[in-house]
Amino acid sequence: MAQWIWYPGDFEFFLGLGVSAARMERGIVITPNWRVENFYNNVRFSKEVELKEDQRIRIYSTGTQCVMLDYDWYSHYDPREGVLVPKGKHVIWVYVFSRELLPSIYINCPGVETDASWQVTSDHLRWKKAGCWNFTDPEKPPTTFRLERSPIEPEKITLLEHGRLYDFGRETMAFVKGEVSGSGTLTVFFGESREEALDTENCCIFECVSVEEGMDSFYIPRSQAFRYLYIPDVPGITLGRLHADYEYLPVKNKGAFQSEDPLMNQIYEVAIRTMHLTTREFFLDGIKRDRWVWSGDASQSYLMNYYSFFDNDVCKRTMRLIRGKDPVITHFNTIQDYTLYWFISLWQYYLYTADQEFMEEMYPAACTLMEEFCLPQTDSRGFLMAKPTDWVFIDWADIPDMNKGDLSFIQLLFAYALKALGQVAGVLGRQKEQERYEGMHRSLLEQVFAVFWSEERGCFTHGPAASPDAYVTRYANIFAILFGCLDQEKTQRVIRSVLCNDAVYEITTPYMKFYELLAFCEAGLFQEAESYMKSYWGGMLKLGCTSFWEKYDPKNTGIQHAHMYGLKYGVSFCHAWGAGPVLLLGKYYLGVRPVTAGYEQFVVEPHLIGGRQISGKVPVPEGEICVALDQERAVVENHSPGTGELLVDGRRIRIPAKGRVEVKRQQAGIE
Amino acid sequence: MAQWIWYPGDFEFFLGLGVSAARMERGIVITPNWRVENFYNNVRFSKEVELKEDQRIRIYSTGTQCVMLDYDWYSHYDPREGVLVPKGKHVIWVYVFSRELLPSIYINCPGVETDASWQVTSDHLRWKKAGCWNFTDPEKPPTTFRLERSPIEPEKITLLEHGRLYDFGRETMAFVKGEVSGSGTLTVFFGESREEALDTENCCIFECVSVEEGMDSFYIPRSQAFRYLYIPDVPGITLGRLHADYEYLPVKNKGAFQSEDPLMNQIYEVAIRTMHLTTREFFLDGIKRDRWVWSGDASQSYLMNYYSFFDNDVCKRTMRLIRGKDPVITHFNTIQDYTLYWFISLWQYYLYTADQEFMEEMYPAACTLMEEFCLPQTDSRGFLMAKPTDWVFIDWADIPDMNKGDLSFIQLLFAYALKALGQVAGVLGRQKEQERYEGMHRSLLEQVFAVFWSEERGCFTHGPAASPDAYVTRYANIFAILFGCLDQEKTQRVIRSVLCNDAVYEITTPYMKFYELLAFCEAGLFQEAESYMKSYWGGMLKLGCTSFWEKYDPKNTGIQHAHMYGLKYGVSFCHAWGAGPVLLLGKYYLGVRPVTAGYEQFVVEPHLIGGRQISGKVPVPEGEICVALDQERAVVENHSPGTGELLVDGRRIRIPAKGRVEVKRQQAGIE
Repeated sequence: MAQWIWYPGDFEFFLGLGVSAARMERGIVITPNWRVENFYNNVRFSKEVELKEDQRIRIYSTGTQCVMLDYDWYSHYDPREGVLVPKGKHVIWVYVFSRELLPSIYINCPGVETDASWQVTSDHLRWKKAGCWNFTDPEKPPTTFRLERSPIEPEKITLLEHGRLYDFGRETMAFVKGEVSGSGTLTVFFGESREEALDTENCCIFECVSVEEGMDSFYIPRSQAFRYLYIPDVPGITLGRLHADYEYLPVKNKGAFQSEDPLMNQIYEVAIRTMHLTTREFFLDGIKRDRWVWSGDASQSYLMNYYSFFDNDVCKRTMRLIRGKDPVITHFNTIQDYTLYWFISLWQYYLYTADQEFMEEMYPAACTLMEEFCLPQTDSRGFLMAKPTDWVFIDWADIPDMNKGDLSFIQLLFAYALKALGQVAGVLGRQKEQERYEGMHRSLLEQVFAVFWSEERGCFTHGPAASPDAYVTRYANIFAILFGCLDQEKTQRVIRSVLCNDAVYEITTPYMKFYELLAFCEAGLFQEAESYMKSYWGGMLKLGCTSFWEKYDPKNTGIQHAHMYGLKYGVSFCHAWGAGPVLLLGKYYLGVRPVTAGYEQFVVEPHLIGGRQISGKVPVPEGEICVALDQERAVVENHSPGTGELLVDGRRIRIPAKGRVEVKRQQAGIE
Repeated sequence: MAQWIWYPGDFEFFLGLGVSAARMERGIVITPNWRVENFYNNVRFSKEVELKEDQRIRIYSTGTQCVMLDYDWYSHYDPREGVLVPKGKHVIWVYVFSRELLPSIYINCPGVETDASWQVTSDHLRWKKAGCWNFTDPEKPPTTFRLERSPIEPEKITLLEHGRLYDFGRETMAFVKGEVSGSGTLTVFFGESREEALDTENCCIFECVSVEEGMDSFYIPRSQAFRYLYIPDVPGITLGRLHADYEYLPVKNKGAFQSEDPLMNQIYEVAIRTMHLTTREFFLDGIKRDRWVWSGDASQSYLMNYYSFFDNDVCKRTMRLIRGKDPVITHFNTIQDYTLYWFISLWQYYLYTADQEFMEEMYPAACTLMEEFCLPQTDSRGFLMAKPTDWVFIDWADIPDMNKGDLSFIQLLFAYALKALGQVAGVLGRQKEQERYEGMHRSLLEQVFAVFWSEERGCFTHGPAASPDAYVTRYANIFAILFGCLDQEKTQRVIRSVLCNDAVYEITTPYMKFYELLAFCEAGLFQEAESYMKSYWGGMLKLGCTSFWEKYDPKNTGIQHAHMYGLKYGVSFCHAWGAGPVLLLGKYYLGVRPVTAGYEQFVVEPHLIGGRQISGKVPVPEGEICVALDQERAVVENHSPGTGELLVDGRRIRIPAKGRVEVKRQQAGIE
């Protein structure tokens, strides 16, 4: 089937240009402090075709086009008439140029259909497999892509002394529109909270609408994040019905979670909603702020996605956008660890999806990133050093200043990034490269233990353990558990000395808290994880949140929760990294996770919530796995071609392909 | 004085996008087979300012803007009101984002004026000196730049049986416009020759004009190259006055040349005209075709420019555009030698202009080009090897196939490129780097002599001299003379065995012929050069040319002259490399050339034309040098602060700064 094709990655850069300039603050567009990529303007498509008879090939394109047939200019070319290609074998080259639109072509003629079998070049030397997605209509090129829209209405309208307050009932992202007459300037104040919308001096987002005589409606052409809108009365303007178009990526939650605890169920629902709002052209951090694509944030969204939408496309788009073009000059989003997450996410994507094609696409870019950007920054120990200009962001905890290079968590992440790249190499049958990267992984890991492991304290220290100022943070210790670097004994020591030790700097972001909870679960501390979920995410729900926040400190009250960065409403109230329970509940409570790529083999190791009951399902590439657990039995329905093992009460029961397993539990209430 | 500023090089890439998509062939845009650069979309400008009192800073920009003051977001920012900057020292950051327009800013407040003292970054790590030119009006940002236009009229209108033929009297580049009424589609056929315009099936360029009821005029929004226009009659359309807007870069010829030979004077005039037509946003190869920027072609235009417009800006724009961005993946214009000319042109630019600032701007990019692109492609001898995909273009002579790596002319060009880069390093006081590159130059030159010099034949062979198939071409021998690699004795041998040897493959492009004529002059063969100019350029004039051609073979007749690339009108009839006499007459007959950068020291070594008289002037950075020579005396008027030497009749006479020298010749008619 013919598809629109383009230079791989360029569709993402084309969309990224729009996304990078969508964050607003009081009428001003705030743009990122990193390089924003543009697509290539002048690309050449190529294909060797064999025709059974002479044909006129009609080429659709999103820019100017010119054609070479068998390495000669096709002269007297009229694109409306097409290219006359004689019977037999021929090489077709199509040059497409556009200043402003992604260059792309579409051909749908017998024997000549555009698809991923075409080659494309931007530098006119190195050919790559063409990029494509699901654009099959010649009249709808990729440049017409936009998210879906569907109408929404305010749930409640309150007439105030000087204006109207609209409550849409929950956080949303929408184009505001309305009926209007008269003339003047209407201002719409947006709020993720009621307080924000009403605080016209300090709310983050407002839009001005010029109303002119003869207009009967308005449509704000930018979608914005809000739950509340406040519109002050303007003499001379009559405002009629106000509503909006919800803007969203059409993905559906393919997972499910249910327990007897309504709070946990609500946490799951709101986490899914938070995920959906932040899952768009790309995985965004938050929909109000920063409305940007951050590699560290995205590395969590990918994981949550595997337990909800299982949408490969948004993962691929996000990874392509973050990788950008060469030369890489700064760490992704300028943050040292954010580069490293990208490698790890690439491997995890393969583990969940078994999408080998994407590995083939990205592996060369992953290698140049490692070889040309990361490795030249290592020291004699193999440690990834930081430049003074690098940002090393891990959490907002108030920890002492650090020598950016000698940080245990960075080196652990780097070691795991090397391993991830080695594993990707292995998937592609590049054994030598696999050995190289995995060898580097092993020797780096040895160095990490030598430098950062404190036998005395029973954990990794933040900087070198031998330093007289050495102190402990949670980060490296969490990663060590997640990456499986610790044996049983060391794991237990880390749990005691760090994870369950209140004297260690508390984690202040849900972002890092997410990893801590994963580590709790990996270490078997399900009670602790559950109880934290209830108090932390439950705490936000008690405050009436309809999506999870960027930051939540139970010690705050009222609108204090919104304060950040010196701004009254600085906190993002719909932030992807707040959706952690999606993964926690799916991977550790329903307990479903892949053992080999794409769930060809998997395990189901369920755990109860509140000691009672849970049920739900987890999507896999070719189906889903349904799990139910209560004190009496465990049931797994495997609607997938993979095979698995049910781990319950210390037993291992084989789960057949497309089969069902029901196990009577031997000791009720064992958990 | 405040100026619009931008990321250095981006103005060129912004203009380059337009120029790269302006070549047309029968309604189709033909785009180059190399990467076309785009500007950076998201840049950040920075300046540390010190204000004597509080000020509101109004920032003009060509994209969205947001501001950081002393590393904090400037919130509640309304660009119409400006940024309130308190008295004292502050760091201002302005972020500008634009998808489609070059991001640029303009500030004109006391103490805060945008100019080249600002810094700018595209990758948000490495800061560069901001780019600027002569945009000082806040309402006219660099994105509004366009060439000048002035109205022109056809010289002659011929009514033919089915249409009208307009002759504008000479080659031009213009927007065609006219008075019209009725309805239908008018087609305008363009011709650099009468034949081309009338050959509606094969002419290179045509434009269709939709005429609708109520229209009284039309304006074709693309300027095109032509001398003739043919417009067939269309029933239902009445065509009134037809005229055009000549489009040009407003540069003036600051040189002059006059002799008693009207043909030579005409050659000079038409060469200047050819130069002017091809000197535009950048130095183009030809105005009809390819209408692109080729490094090899431009390397000649720069030189001609120093003897005519002496416009530094078009040189800088062209060199920036050709250099492009990193990573460099292919040779410039895909041609191996075209990369090398760029280095040489950079040095020559300095020699003529003494523009150290531009050396500072380009030196880092010149180094990465050498270190990251060229040097990794060298073999153990230091030879620059070619990849199979590289194009090695030197001339259209029908010489045997060659091993692309082992070519004497490439290695000589490479050696001189290394020397040029070393000299640029020297200008910037980078002594070690100068020594490095000049050392590489010397050892490469030794290798070149060892491998390619044939003592037996008394010249360089095309490939290795020891090869049994070795043959001789002119190219390396010409370059060896131009680069001063040969001693007196070797020079004489090369002249005899190559330059004056008809058995050696004849040069077929004016492009390479240009270098051969320079070599003739360098070797003192003025009679030969003069006689060739008269026959070759004079030959075109006899055929009625009004600008010089891409190719001219006296053996052809009539419209045969236009045949090329299998196209009836393939030859470009206004081609920069056809303007060689501008340089020949200025540098070798008026004989004015710099000895040290910017003509601080210079020589004047004039030669007669036709044994009679010549006079003229040559522009220098701060003035001009006027020369007159006849059989009795030589006169130099030095309207510049530099000092020179007049070399005439074997004498050396000092020319003082801003002074005049008149010398009676001792032997009349010596030449």
